[in-house]
Amino acid sequence: MKVILLSGGSGKRLWPLSNDCRSKQFLKILTSPSGDKESMTQRVVRQITESVIDADVVIATSSNQKEIIISQFGNRLQTVIEPMRRDTFPAIALSCAYLHSEQNCPDDEVVVVLPCDQFTESGYFEVVNQMGTAVKNSDLDIVLMGIEPESPSSNFGYILPEKAGNSIMRVMSFVEKPSVDKAKEIIGRGGLWNGGVFAFRLGYVTDKVKAILGTSEYSSVLDRYSQLPKISFDYEVVEKAESIGVVPFKGEWKDLGSWDALAGHIEHNATNCIISQCNDTKVVNELDIPVVCLGTDNITVAASHDGILVTGRNMAGPLKDVLAAIDTRPRFEERSWGEFRTIDSTSAHDGLNSLTRRLTIKSGKSINGQLHNHRSKIWTVVKGKGMMVLDGDTFELSPGQTIPIAKRQLHAVKALTELEIIEIQLGTNLHDDDIEQFERK
Amino acid sequence: MKVILLSGGSGKRLWPLSNDCRSKQFLKILTSPSGDKESMTQRVVRQITESVIDADVVIATSSNQKEIIISQFGNRLQTVIEPMRRDTFPAIALSCAYLHSEQNCPDDEVVVVLPCDQFTESGYFEVVNQMGTAVKNSDLDIVLMGIEPESPSSNFGYILPEKAGNSIMRVMSFVEKPSVDKAKEIIGRGGLWNGGVFAFRLGYVTDKVKAILGTSEYSSVLDRYSQLPKISFDYEVVEKAESIGVVPFKGEWKDLGSWDALAGHIEHNATNCIISQCNDTKVVNELDIPVVCLGTDNITVAASHDGILVTGRNMAGPLKDVLAAIDTRPRFEERSWGEFRTIDSTSAHDGLNSLTRRLTIKSGKSINGQLHNHRSKIWTVVKGKGMMVLDGDTFELSPGQTIPIAKRQLHAVKALTELEIIEIQLGTNLHDDDIEQFERK
Repeated sequence: MKVILLSGGSGKRLWPLSNDCRSKQFLKILTSPSGDKESMTQRVVRQITESVIDADVVIATSSNQKEIIISQFGNRLQTVIEPMRRDTFPAIALSCAYLHSEQNCPDDEVVVVLPCDQFTESGYFEVVNQMGTAVKNSDLDIVLMGIEPESPSSNFGYILPEKAGNSIMRVMSFVEKPSVDKAKEIIGRGGLWNGGVFAFRLGYVTDKVKAILGTSEYSSVLDRYSQLPKISFDYEVVEKAESIGVVPFKGEWKDLGSWDALAGHIEHNATNCIISQCNDTKVVNELDIPVVCLGTDNITVAASHDGILVTGRNMAGPLKDVLAAIDTRPRFEERSWGEFRTIDSTSAHDGLNSLTRRLTIKSGKSINGQLHNHRSKIWTVVKGKGMMVLDGDTFELSPGQTIPIAKRQLHAVKALTELEIIEIQLGTNLHDDDIEQFERK
Repeated sequence: MKVILLSGGSGKRLWPLSNDCRSKQFLKILTSPSGDKESMTQRVVRQITESVIDADVVIATSSNQKEIIISQFGNRLQTVIEPMRRDTFPAIALSCAYLHSEQNCPDDEVVVVLPCDQFTESGYFEVVNQMGTAVKNSDLDIVLMGIEPESPSSNFGYILPEKAGNSIMRVMSFVEKPSVDKAKEIIGRGGLWNGGVFAFRLGYVTDKVKAILGTSEYSSVLDRYSQLPKISFDYEVVEKAESIGVVPFKGEWKDLGSWDALAGHIEHNATNCIISQCNDTKVVNELDIPVVCLGTDNITVAASHDGILVTGRNMAGPLKDVLAAIDTRPRFEERSWGEFRTIDSTSAHDGLNSLTRRLTIKSGKSINGQLHNHRSKIWTVVKGKGMMVLDGDTFELSPGQTIPIAKRQLHAVKALTELEIIEIQLGTNLHDDDIEQFERK
């Protein structure tokens, strides 16, 4: 069995922790059974490893998430990089082409597609196994997961089985986000929430791809990715299938897409926060300075280098509408080599701006050759040892050393031990995309 | 008439804005009638200037507040620096000696002593004028201000007049912080809160000083400051006086010594905060990153380089007890030449630490010669022009320049335009007092 994890786009739903560079599913804000912090994606992958029989995991994502995936999983996950964001059908199509021609999977290989931003329990993965078995032992085109509804919510699509049951059922019809009244009626007839989990034989989807592009070879699908229709897998594949099954799941299941939903799953990091005389107060603090809550009720505080959010439990409407008024350019980014955070910025009347950042490069990792056309940089090593290349000169780095890097000077660095560098950038426009990258020779 | 303003010590009552270097009375968190931000002390001085007839203001303070007083008032205020913190009697005694021998005030000069951390209205200063007139036109030793109690609070000392009245009354007795029941009884008998405002003839206090030290010459009192008893003016002078008067004040009067008391007087700075779908939510944000409050009720958020505080309206007990668990070393300090803020710190296993700060030096101001025995520094100019002296060499500073400053290298800088410098300090212990200062020649 193969598992395709769909890693959705980035956004501000969990600002200031998520931003245009950090997707919510990679934030390390959950707590694993061993007590370490883990991200939603790390949690799902751990749960798959613990529960799903012989599952090989492929993660479908965009290129800007590649570095954080390597940072959180090393090379344990196979990664399929979408050349551009389209929708779930193209992402699944590309992943299936990868399994077909890069992994040489047979057409009758069972594939399950899972989202990676849901918070759920082990029973969910038992159902994933049941879905795989159902695909294998039946002539069903597609098998879905149906979540037993907690309430007649109008936020979900519903799956209506032919008749209610406890295991695999045939699907009669779908209802897209009904009114609450309509939802009540649907639930009365055995309706289930559509959890966005799909199981099928690989060939069923590669045949669809072939019908559109004339090929299901990975490299060709990659080349012609823009020719795949920008449409969801539900619309393009599921709703057109002739025979669809659904396996019900009853248990904990939550979309952690808002601070409200997340609040119940946050545990405090006691090293940089104090919560005193409070009720139901949650804190996530990524800053070096402490957060102190005193005498508060029913709030969540999230602090990062991007900003500070204090939410009550009953905020309405999407966070991104509220944030439209402010500058939410990311100040913290993870990279495969480590991370950087913006710690200061200044601007002068003559148009010269500065940006001060702390780079942390993991031991043994490198920042490959790069240069900037429009900005100079000054690096000061404050911790660790490394090797640097600057315009062909190679030299050692150690604390206290200052290296001025002029415009268009090619520079690269490798950390021999964990290396921390204070970088000061100077230029008239520090926000433009002003970097040329060079692969290591 | 002379006014002595008592500028109390620093502390954490308004953390993270106040700290061991920033006293609450100098925080610019109030809003002046012109819409600018002003500190409690700036507000009191403005109110004195607007209301008190011909008042010359002397501020009694400690040496660590001298720079912020110059920063907020220039040279408009006469400053009396207490050589050490003792109590209100020595502070007032020293200020009176200053008026006597440095200002050549006559013995019958009327002096009024005011605290500078109270939030009050113009009527308060009319009472100050009445107190001055009462001293001038009577044989009373001391005239006090009695605040009409809002409630039978057990947090204040009470003044009991011989009989209740609307203007000057003779004081019968004092009651130190009574129980609520006792306070009710005292109020029933015309009792008033002791507002800590004293008026007297200069000679009355300089005679006391002479009796203790044998002199009331300023330089001698300064030299023998440690010989003055560490006692409050209330105990040493007021309670021993033979004839004491009190003038009542009815109106707005508040000790802004807690976030709870301050909340009603904060107005938002819209440039770096958003408050949406909230009730009674107040924000003070000194950081460069935005604070967003969403759907919260009855909270105050204060954010500075020292930390982030979120308080509910009904927190109990002193903030400093809660803060005992965390590192509250100040990260932001104002100086007469400008300000500096700590923007980053790192520590390495080999004991080498770094501290990154942004210095802002006002146009025309200088940092006098200094050197460090145990740390090196690297300065990078990110804004403005200046002149620097380093071990006798004089050179110009402009953006992009990097100046390594080794241990024991004497350095000084003058800003020709507003100068911003990113300073990286490196050493094994960056918190010790490791600075030698040299006056400009």
